[in-house]
Amino acid sequence: MPLDENNYCVIMAGGVGSRFWPKSRTQCPKQFLDILGTGRTLIQQTFDRFRNICNPENIYVVTGEDYAEIVSEQLPELNKDNILCEPIRRNTAPCIAYASYKIFSKNPEAQIVVSPADHFVGDTRGFEETIKRGLQFIKFNTESFLTVGIIPTRPETGYGYIQIDSRIGEDPLAINEVTKVKLFTEKPILEMAKVFVSSKEFFWNAGIFLWSAKAIIEAFRTQQKEMAELFDSGLNVAYNTAQEKEFINSIYPQCHNISIDYGIMENYPDIYVIPALFPWSDLGTWGSLYENSQKDENQNAVAGTKVVAINSTGCIINTDSNLVVVDGLKDYIIAQSDKLLLIMPKANEQEIKNIVNNVKIKYGEQFA
Amino acid sequence: MPLDENNYCVIMAGGVGSRFWPKSRTQCPKQFLDILGTGRTLIQQTFDRFRNICNPENIYVVTGEDYAEIVSEQLPELNKDNILCEPIRRNTAPCIAYASYKIFSKNPEAQIVVSPADHFVGDTRGFEETIKRGLQFIKFNTESFLTVGIIPTRPETGYGYIQIDSRIGEDPLAINEVTKVKLFTEKPILEMAKVFVSSKEFFWNAGIFLWSAKAIIEAFRTQQKEMAELFDSGLNVAYNTAQEKEFINSIYPQCHNISIDYGIMENYPDIYVIPALFPWSDLGTWGSLYENSQKDENQNAVAGTKVVAINSTGCIINTDSNLVVVDGLKDYIIAQSDKLLLIMPKANEQEIKNIVNNVKIKYGEQFA
Repeated sequence: MPLDENNYCVIMAGGVGSRFWPKSRTQCPKQFLDILGTGRTLIQQTFDRFRNICNPENIYVVTGEDYAEIVSEQLPELNKDNILCEPIRRNTAPCIAYASYKIFSKNPEAQIVVSPADHFVGDTRGFEETIKRGLQFIKFNTESFLTVGIIPTRPETGYGYIQIDSRIGEDPLAINEVTKVKLFTEKPILEMAKVFVSSKEFFWNAGIFLWSAKAIIEAFRTQQKEMAELFDSGLNVAYNTAQEKEFINSIYPQCHNISIDYGIMENYPDIYVIPALFPWSDLGTWGSLYENSQKDENQNAVAGTKVVAINSTGCIINTDSNLVVVDGLKDYIIAQSDKLLLIMPKANEQEIKNIVNNVKIKYGEQFA
Repeated sequence: MPLDENNYCVIMAGGVGSRFWPKSRTQCPKQFLDILGTGRTLIQQTFDRFRNICNPENIYVVTGEDYAEIVSEQLPELNKDNILCEPIRRNTAPCIAYASYKIFSKNPEAQIVVSPADHFVGDTRGFEETIKRGLQFIKFNTESFLTVGIIPTRPETGYGYIQIDSRIGEDPLAINEVTKVKLFTEKPILEMAKVFVSSKEFFWNAGIFLWSAKAIIEAFRTQQKEMAELFDSGLNVAYNTAQEKEFINSIYPQCHNISIDYGIMENYPDIYVIPALFPWSDLGTWGSLYENSQKDENQNAVAGTKVVAINSTGCIINTDSNLVVVDGLKDYIIAQSDKLLLIMPKANEQEIKNIVNNVKIKYGEQFA
């Protein structure tokens, strides 16, 4: 069956995360790493997942100027014109506005899936099914937004939550299990997260959004007037022309630095959520990487290296070395890249960001 | 004051130790590493120590064929003809016989200091003074052998011991504190080592020997007749000629594989010991390396890298990395070289040899 020509995908690949230091670096953030040791980097896996959802020429990647080349190298099938460069980092709202206006200029009937480049999806078929159902939903509900909700398995404080009006799985009115969203909430404290999970009224927000190009642009016009005016000024003159780059470089720095969640979603009246039919993680920490990696007989998650583990269990071992001998380490991160070595208990991983910042101040940018 | 032209030095640099894996490798044993992070490798430091004892053209290095080039690179002042290549590993007796015959052929009045290439000496002046006193002693006692004895500081089971007839420091007959040796003993068990140390009758055997070329050759003729016959056959025809290499290659494999201690010293009737006026270690283990390294404010011994140590003390950190972040490790070895990484409690260091052997069997020679 040919893919719907109106289906588009926008992969957001602008992150510069430092929590996976020293594997992820300013020069090579997480999305460009094969952090799970599968043979494909995270952005490659994300691209792969959309191959059966929309035509490759309808896949767009938004990233920083500095990463355009690495995107092009890692995704040789991607049309070079489909790499959208942010001249400056401005959070997700301007990024999505740019892609939406560009796609709308090409195809006003476009329906768009927006997805982060660096998340883990455990079941490609389940993903495809969820997204295809979602696209079907917005085809017939052209003004609605749809988000993908992950059914929580623990009171995670690292994710945003989506509250629904009913209890998960109990809404008799749900079309294909799609449910109306009541509220988006930021990352909660632990006590609140426990309440959320036990209430069964909350999903995790996976940051995957589906909407028609028309609807999202209208939402910008209503809720982010200044930003919409900037992007509107390019319609019929700039998008998909030789002037596009210059145009974007001139307007982008004037955009508010604001997230799509805060800038649009929280106040949009017509949002639905579809439950994910796949295991998911934002891979935000070494711990979540460990959870989503294959483990060897000692429950160590080892990528790309030979390991001799003596009295060592529960470790993440991710290095450039050909061989690692490790003795007496339980639940440790052992990560090494580009002559930077980290050995740290998994439990302390939240310290990494501070350490890297201090290292940068003390020793210079080249270590970050 | 010009140096005595009859003073010679033989540096034994044939070791292939694996106990410092992965820093020391078959391709680059310990003597060729700057394992202490001083800016000079151990063989360079050994060479430096002899610069004020004998003329550079009187310094010889015996090593394996495979290491001749690295010796030449690391010691550019060394005459290339002074690098003696063992065609096959045959322990210290043949090595010393070769050097002794070669030097004797050049200068029958030579007095020779034999020294390992890879030991730690903490005080170059004390070393010079000890060796110069020793050379003075054998100058007037031409048939005597002299060994350097280290006054023990702990019941070490990793060293051989030298027993004297009196108690250390209490012999009224000692000339410049030189004392007659009663017995050489192999590495003792702990109980025995404790008795040795408390008796004050025992020195550690540092493997540094002084003798006249004549006396050591005579000793070979008496105690290692077959070996001496092989080397005697080269006198006046092979040593210091274009035929030397071919000659050595033909006789060397016929030599017994025997140490100088076992083959000569243990039965030689006329041996003395001079106490070392310098701190010493054979640097045989990571632990002894730690003891003899400079420590930072966290009592970590760090060589050649920036380290962020969090709750980490008593560690040896010796890697190729530019920066190491280590959290929660006490008394660990963190060593890395050529894409091989070792993280192990210092207390388990005796396991390294077995691990490397197993790795070699399982994964191949390239990891050893």
